[in-house]
Amino acid sequence: MDLFTDEYFMKEALKEAQKALAKDEIPIGAVIVSNNQIIARAHNLTQTLNDVTAHAEMQAITSAANSIGGKYLINCSLYVTLEPCIMCAGALYWSQITKIVYGASDNKKGYTTINSGILHPKTQVIKGILENECSNIIIDFFKKKR
Amino acid sequence: MDLFTDEYFMKEALKEAQKALAKDEIPIGAVIVSNNQIIARAHNLTQTLNDVTAHAEMQAITSAANSIGGKYLINCSLYVTLEPCIMCAGALYWSQITKIVYGASDNKKGYTTINSGILHPKTQVIKGILENECSNIIIDFFKKKR
Repeated sequence: MDLFTDEYFMKEALKEAQKALAKDEIPIGAVIVSNNQIIARAHNLTQTLNDVTAHAEMQAITSAANSIGGKYLINCSLYVTLEPCIMCAGALYWSQITKIVYGASDNKKGYTTINSGILHPKTQVIKGILENECSNIIIDFFKKKR
Repeated sequence: MDLFTDEYFMKEALKEAQKALAKDEIPIGAVIVSNNQIIARAHNLTQTLNDVTAHAEMQAITSAANSIGGKYLINCSLYVTLEPCIMCAGALYWSQITKIVYGASDNKKGYTTINSGILHPKTQVIKGILENECSNIIIDFFKKKR
């Protein structure tokens, strides 16, 4: 039995989203995994850092590169609770990451709203893992803001 | 006579590109200007920082937001020697920057290679300022690498 399923690592990304929530940030979390080991954890910090580039994925890419001592994330997988935006997809392209797994789709700002292959042709994409948990945490966040 | 022309600030961006060149980085530089004052300077540091996200524009956005104490770059202009890539255009979208001026076009990796409006609808774009200087510094860099 494989312990290290996509659901297992998406739960870890959700833990990161919870950390963002605790800081009143839009709750999005990410982890990057290499050989079944989490080499980077990050959550959205755009408000805290006062920086539109501080998405969970961007920080995770920087942190993972630091961890492996190389800027290309070959044989690495990103788990992120929400579909990456165009900026993050562009960064993931440069990273040549092997696999991207996202939970909820983002029909407004997600990279798939653009009809072009932004990602690296080598990158495999899986979506919909723990979709409800990943979207509900964001929906609840915005409900409380109203 | 207006001292603070687009050429004036593009020359400042070229000075940043020169700094990248001195570090054996692909020579791309950027400045962000608000009320005719340079509030951020940056150059490509992807090799030095071992980070695919360390493009001149990304660092300039983070630095400018820090400088003005707000994450939206309203009434700010970015001057960058090369056409921004998709990642950087995505970041510029989030920043809602008022104006983007770039020197050389990037027909392979520039954001305009994608047939979609990535930038914020409010953002004005000017291209081709000091185009030859901006492209020649990059062409010379790659010639020497061969």
